Amino acid sequence: MRIGILGATGAVGRQMIQCIEERNLDVEELRLFASERSLGKTLPFKGEEIPLRIVEEGCFENLDYVLGAVSNALSKEYAPMIHKAGAVYIDNSSAFRLEDAVPLVVPEINGEDALKHEGIIANPNCSTIITLMAVAAIQKISPIKTMVASTYQAVSGAGIGGFGELTSQVQGVLNGKEIECNVFPKQIAFNCIPMIGSLNEDGITSEEAKMQNEGRKILHNPNLKVSCTCVRVPVYRSHSISVSLQCEKAITVEEVEAAIQNFEGVEVFKDGFPTPLESSNQDIVYVGRIREDVVFDGGITLWCCGDQVRKGAATNAVQIMEYLDTHKV
Amino acid sequence: MRIGILGATGAVGRQMIQCIEERNLDVEELRLFASERSLGKTLPFKGEEIPLRIVEEGCFENLDYVLGAVSNALSKEYAPMIHKAGAVYIDNSSAFRLEDAVPLVVPEINGEDALKHEGIIANPNCSTIITLMAVAAIQKISPIKTMVASTYQAVSGAGIGGFGELTSQVQGVLNGKEIECNVFPKQIAFNCIPMIGSLNEDGITSEEAKMQNEGRKILHNPNLKVSCTCVRVPVYRSHSISVSLQCEKAITVEEVEAAIQNFEGVEVFKDGFPTPLESSNQDIVYVGRIREDVVFDGGITLWCCGDQVRKGAATNAVQIMEYLDTHKV
Repeated sequence: MRIGILGATGAVGRQMIQCIEERNLDVEELRLFASERSLGKTLPFKGEEIPLRIVEEGCFENLDYVLGAVSNALSKEYAPMIHKAGAVYIDNSSAFRLEDAVPLVVPEINGEDALKHEGIIANPNCSTIITLMAVAAIQKISPIKTMVASTYQAVSGAGIGGFGELTSQVQGVLNGKEIECNVFPKQIAFNCIPMIGSLNEDGITSEEAKMQNEGRKILHNPNLKVSCTCVRVPVYRSHSISVSLQCEKAITVEEVEAAIQNFEGVEVFKDGFPTPLESSNQDIVYVGRIREDVVFDGGITLWCCGDQVRKGAATNAVQIMEYLDTHKV
Repeated sequence: MRIGILGATGAVGRQMIQCIEERNLDVEELRLFASERSLGKTLPFKGEEIPLRIVEEGCFENLDYVLGAVSNALSKEYAPMIHKAGAVYIDNSSAFRLEDAVPLVVPEINGEDALKHEGIIANPNCSTIITLMAVAAIQKISPIKTMVASTYQAVSGAGIGGFGELTSQVQGVLNGKEIECNVFPKQIAFNCIPMIGSLNEDGITSEEAKMQNEGRKILHNPNLKVSCTCVRVPVYRSHSISVSLQCEKAITVEEVEAAIQNFEGVEVFKDGFPTPLESSNQDIVYVGRIREDVVFDGGITLWCCGDQVRKGAATNAVQIMEYLDTHKV
């Protein structure tokens, strides 16, 4: 495989490099792209130092896959160049996710959708991937009708800057210094912020809308209704989601536990209450607190946690690439 | 008023003393009770130093009110002694909350229930108080049928030890030292723990059951159904709750905003997304993110925050005492 990575110096870009190395893919060439200020620097891959380059005329030639971890604006700018060079673009931004011609893929759930691509495949939103890993297992029992979700999202969702802002604010609070807010709209240290992304006219944030819109597409369930509140919490890497759901038929705790255990990439956590810390730095989504829902007849309540930088972003993109490569004609 | 405080050295006990001072109550005597190891120590009240005493034979004589901030076990032990001395016991523990003869009171919601007491009045669970302050306002429009709630609970809910454990763990993480867990079942620094209290046979925690059981009693709404997930987050003082609810009739965002603005003790937050930090160290419960619910037809989604040590515990208990004193025959 000849692979390019856009945004290689960011939190997700670096994790993509690490995932490719860990998964021991057969990499013939790895080209790392970053902004101009990274020129002259390198990043390590399999014991070598790979120089960072910028996107310029012809830079994608002879690549098979380009993994993108850049903004929507840059993603839209680079996509035609990647297409022209004949590479498949696996995009982590939300620029193309809801376009009909673009498959939106979590390989364990709808890997086969990836094969219908026309040059671009989109990687879903991080909270959506982590929630759906638990929920897609349940959909094998009965189609999901409604879902009420509240998220507990790590600062990593805002990139490398989010990590630094949490650390420096925590140090500031402990040392009685003034707090600066650059990445998040309010202090995140010792706080929770119920506002991620921008508000639409219905008072729903862009982050909250993704759970319903992307969920419908990935699960092939156009009538799925999701009421979601997305909240940033002072956690470094993993997102957690509290979910109440109702399927078309009544489901039991035992059925749900069995469905999760039979689904690749998701596990019922050993002590029944996984935390974001315990799901960090690995690729499995952990589920716990599985119980009958009090409000939804025959419904289920659960809690799930997964590493947002890995399965919520980088690992999922690399898995899409592997899926394509394994299934290529 | 001649007032006793049980557990005066704890987080809630200290806050009770501060609330009584702030609210400028007409206090003839204040007796502060703590454990034996506090003997010889004092706590300040209105510029005086009040000696700490222990509970012993005759210690409650000539008191009008005793405010309790002790464990269920101690509360059960002391209640008969307080009753015998002729004082009214306002108890912050959960020992008596669901007993028929014991009013469970949030003064702004069901203050008149307090007048029917037989010697004991219970102060509700902290998350329940904060959620109901928002929800009781809505119930004035139409009775609430169902509620799905996820909590973001501060470490103060576990008392003074919770504060110290969060701080020392955060310092430990930043300095690469080993983390000790004494108060919470897992590391709380940079983590979220979806397990507060003990699990019942249905997989619901004692904390989660309170929201439904106490909510029914306080709101005089015996059919209210609450699906709740209670989660501890690394925040110091205020609890936050994400709520989706459905009333018997359809309600609108405008009706809800107006109802909240007309209800004492609760406010729609100025910028629409209050955080626990912004609701700390004061008595108002802030509400934000009010929008149509996607799952419940005619229902509403909202987010509320309130200081758990104050309105969630100490202030509410002091308000019950004031209510009784103002309405005494």
